[in-house]
Amino acid sequence: MEQRLHRIHVRTTGRGLVAITEPVLRWVAAQGVVTGLLTLWCRHTSCSLLVQENASPEVRDDLEAFFRRLVPEGTALYRHDDEGPDDMPAHIRAALTQTQLSIPVAEGRPVLGTWQGLYLWEHRAAPHRREIVLHLIGAAAPP
Amino acid sequence: MEQRLHRIHVRTTGRGLVAITEPVLRWVAAQGVVTGLLTLWCRHTSCSLLVQENASPEVRDDLEAFFRRLVPEGTALYRHDDEGPDDMPAHIRAALTQTQLSIPVAEGRPVLGTWQGLYLWEHRAAPHRREIVLHLIGAAAPP
Amino acid sequence: MEQRLHRIHVRTTGRGLVAITEPVLRWVAAQGVVTGLLTLWCRHTSCSLLVQENASPEVRDDLEAFFRRLVPEGTALYRHDDEGPDDMPAHIRAALTQTQLSIPVAEGRPVLGTWQGLYLWEHRAAPHRREIVLHLIGAAAPP
Repeated sequence: MEQRLHRIHVRTTGRGLVAITEPVLRWVAAQGVVTGLLTLWCRHTSCSLLVQENASPEVRDDLEAFFRRLVPEGTALYRHDDEGPDDMPAHIRAALTQTQLSIPVAEGRPVLGTWQGLYLWEHRAAPHRREIVLHLIGAAAPP
Repeated sequence: MEQRLHRIHVRTTGRGLVAITEPVLRWVAAQGVVTGLLTLWCRHTSCSLLVQENASPEVRDDLEAFFRRLVPEGTALYRHDDEGPDDMPAHIRAALTQTQLSIPVAEGRPVLGTWQGLYLWEHRAAPHRREIVLHLIGAAAPP
Repeated sequence: MEQRLHRIHVRTTGRGLVAITEPVLRWVAAQGVVTGLLTLWCRHTSCSLLVQENASPEVRDDLEAFFRRLVPEGTALYRHDDEGPDDMPAHIRAALTQTQLSIPVAEGRPVLGTWQGLYLWEHRAAPHRREIVLHLIGAAAPP
């Protein structure tokens, strides 16, 4: 059994989904692990990880619009606004989604479904540089 | 240390929770792993995984009703409706719940609490056949 | 490769976040695992796990207030009220957050970001004693 660790950095351009499927799959493919478990950990509390439809950009737009309605900005709603009106809504959106994903690896690749893509979801209005830790545990042989 | 991979298929009858605790526990029990980590991965973006109360059917009905109110159908709300009015609400409901669960295994069984059951949550109105990948890593001995 | 299992118990004082970062990090530090994967499993369906900002108490208050508005109590809303008006809202709040977290371990410690803290989120109005299972798999050497 072997382990691998890696970090990827993602530049965001304000609220919305950034696809990370490709760099994640590329890194896994280079590790020589045939069967295992891949874990992604997002090191922030105002962005999150999401598995979603990878085909239609409209799905991403609708998701972002729904979450803006669900978690509105507004000075009367929150006590915490140290970093502006999008600060507390960003924390709530992160609480409603995922900081971590673990995906089984079979035949050398994560077992994503045909339509599943991996995304970093930026919840802050301004661009940020985000860090995701990748951990892979597994073996070079089938189970 | 050993690994196991398995796939289970679940037939749904439209929106609502389908219990999967029993087939999951049965598979784990047959693997001879005493201590380990079990991961469930749902290979879809319009259904999800849920841990919930396994005693009262009312809890499942209330959960389904709450999510229908939280994520309403409506042509004015979403741009993405390729597969009908339940298409985009299904993606949002999946984003608000889990695509993956990892459960420690101790003394040969997942450490579910007394009242915890595992469910596949179908978010589409029509019946579907869904696939869940199970991954188990662990050892035949106590830690 | 080695594994460790542990259980921690948390006393809550009604709805709200209880910090668990310190006992979790302390246990990991004592295991002699340099590279690995730590999993936390909450054995209940009316409280959950959360990764959130560890600096400002206002964030925790705002989170709690938002979830009370999002999932209101009310006899007309739910059929399940065996344990009182906070019973079904607690199950819904748990469904909207996490029962499990898996965190990569590097250089002997979980890779939490600077501002990330680990919390148990009590969703019931009354105090409870809650149980979290910790599982660690890894090795005493770098990858």
